[in-house]
Amino acid sequence: MRIGILGAGQLGRMLALAGYPLAKTFVFYDMSGSPSAGLGEVIIDREGKYLDDFLSRVDRVTYEFEHLPVEVAEEISRSKPVYPGPRALQVCQNREAEKTLFGDLGIPTPQWRMANSADSLKAAAEELGCPVVAKSNTEGYDGKGQAVLRSPEDAAEAWQSIGHERLMVEKFVDFTREVSLIAVRGIDGEVDFYPMAENVHHEGILRYSIAPAPQLSPALEEKAGGYIRALLNELDYVGVLALELFETADGLVANEMAPRVHNSGHWTMEGAMTSQFENHIRAVAGHPLGNTAARGLSCMVNIIGEHGDIERIMELPYAHLHLYAKAERPGRKLGHVNVLADSYEELKWRVRNVAQFLPGSPEFDCSLTR
Amino acid sequence: MRIGILGAGQLGRMLALAGYPLAKTFVFYDMSGSPSAGLGEVIIDREGKYLDDFLSRVDRVTYEFEHLPVEVAEEISRSKPVYPGPRALQVCQNREAEKTLFGDLGIPTPQWRMANSADSLKAAAEELGCPVVAKSNTEGYDGKGQAVLRSPEDAAEAWQSIGHERLMVEKFVDFTREVSLIAVRGIDGEVDFYPMAENVHHEGILRYSIAPAPQLSPALEEKAGGYIRALLNELDYVGVLALELFETADGLVANEMAPRVHNSGHWTMEGAMTSQFENHIRAVAGHPLGNTAARGLSCMVNIIGEHGDIERIMELPYAHLHLYAKAERPGRKLGHVNVLADSYEELKWRVRNVAQFLPGSPEFDCSLTR
Repeated sequence: MRIGILGAGQLGRMLALAGYPLAKTFVFYDMSGSPSAGLGEVIIDREGKYLDDFLSRVDRVTYEFEHLPVEVAEEISRSKPVYPGPRALQVCQNREAEKTLFGDLGIPTPQWRMANSADSLKAAAEELGCPVVAKSNTEGYDGKGQAVLRSPEDAAEAWQSIGHERLMVEKFVDFTREVSLIAVRGIDGEVDFYPMAENVHHEGILRYSIAPAPQLSPALEEKAGGYIRALLNELDYVGVLALELFETADGLVANEMAPRVHNSGHWTMEGAMTSQFENHIRAVAGHPLGNTAARGLSCMVNIIGEHGDIERIMELPYAHLHLYAKAERPGRKLGHVNVLADSYEELKWRVRNVAQFLPGSPEFDCSLTR
Repeated sequence: MRIGILGAGQLGRMLALAGYPLAKTFVFYDMSGSPSAGLGEVIIDREGKYLDDFLSRVDRVTYEFEHLPVEVAEEISRSKPVYPGPRALQVCQNREAEKTLFGDLGIPTPQWRMANSADSLKAAAEELGCPVVAKSNTEGYDGKGQAVLRSPEDAAEAWQSIGHERLMVEKFVDFTREVSLIAVRGIDGEVDFYPMAENVHHEGILRYSIAPAPQLSPALEEKAGGYIRALLNELDYVGVLALELFETADGLVANEMAPRVHNSGHWTMEGAMTSQFENHIRAVAGHPLGNTAARGLSCMVNIIGEHGDIERIMELPYAHLHLYAKAERPGRKLGHVNVLADSYEELKWRVRNVAQFLPGSPEFDCSLTR
């Protein structure tokens, strides 16, 4: 089976690496660069001229990023199956639609309002109670297109700085930690969950994911499983879906979802029986899903901006290196290291040992270190 | 770093899959088909016209098969580093040179003689005592170019059927099982061993490898480690080397070695901390070697001739599928399944469960089932 991937970044690269052993072949359709070069044909199409050519070379289509125009996904779906389907994209590209769906399915979210002007932003901040965070409704990720309002008086400046015509305003959530759940749904409706991960962000970028998340109550994990199952079924979803949540004193609060393999699931490459990448390919190709159980404890450490002392990391007997073959640039995801251990105590020290060779790694501040 | 691979079969394919996450790229130089298509550039060169072109695109060269002409390896080594070096190839292509080297290094072998005629074959059979096996000295593998002599009177017919001018004649070894040792040596001389595997052959083709080999005495494992270390150092070897041995009532007897990643090391993909493929690439590229420790117990089950009921195998939560994207043909290696377990008893039943979906799989007859 020939699988077409929209996008040719590290996620597409890792999907292909997981898919070749299942006898799939890959064609990438890329609108920017081509870091997946070498792992299949790459069709570079800055002007959108070669989409038909791409489609003629593939049997099914998936994507590695959720910013794909929904019309493009819909156009493609008229000639080749696209998984996940266009509706998942549509929901994930629109914060209002996403939060509304969460609400409809009984998934708790931060309190939110929409704003169409500096005045309505101010009103929303007053109504919700500051601090609030304002985000452009349809664009921006990794902390871009956002502003924090400490007081309603910040509204005018925030409106100006974001520069979009429709904003979602969310009340700050007082969370103890960030967690995520990766699930996969097959063409036949079969659903499987990975153990949840605890995530550590720094300056809006994921830095560490520990899985299974330490000291997570089974009741909360079951709740989260119910939330993502509702989403998967409602969207008649096929493939891997990621759901980011906040853990609070009152339980879980959903932050956002991503209709694709997710950075907080990279630990599954050595830390689970089947990686999220293989499971996404299995789902898209219509195979039975693979075992999502953890193999011991693991922590994913992102390599951001600079490669650091890779040779020293390669010497560590518990570290698995995954490079994306990208040039160094501040804030850029260049690779990750999966650290394995038999106990959380061991994991903590091993992660710190890896992080010392990665310049600019933030302190490993998580539930294990508090 | 751009790594050139001579050959484009499944071993080259799995080397590339392991090397991309280390930011290597691959160019294959192929003298026959191209099952690695998609995983890098493939230069098909049936007439040997494009070797210079291939060499201009790579920084280092390795190979996936030992039947490469030594002169070609030597020619290449004058322009680009070739690992393992041409001397390893030379020794592995000549049974007399190989067994002589084993003897020189104190590695036990079956008793052997060389024969240049039907008469000298008969004399060798008389001297060694039948049964003996006669093998062409410089060609043949997987049981081809061989004949068994039950009595010296079989010499004329055996000579005729093999049809080579120089044969090695070996006394039959009364072995309890076949085992193998995979080791890796870095450019700096660092050596690491994987746990040994027990191998089950059927009609001259490897069918099962169980690792770590059950009930192997630590003293024997240490002996084998000493043997392969002597070979690696003597050959100033870089990369993965496989040594096949017989376990007998009197200890280990070396059968042959292969200067490459080896089918009896495929279990390392999920069964060890670092796969043999990644370690070969690490060695060739001059990186530190990866951890060779086992992750639990595993058994590699080869998929031979027909794919069987792959979908059923994909449903099994302990089975990892690796397909080579090759067409079915009797006796052909099409892929393998790595089965994981926590106990040998569990492993035995899981392997049998996998094997039932692979038509023509021989009975799983090994030390676990006797």
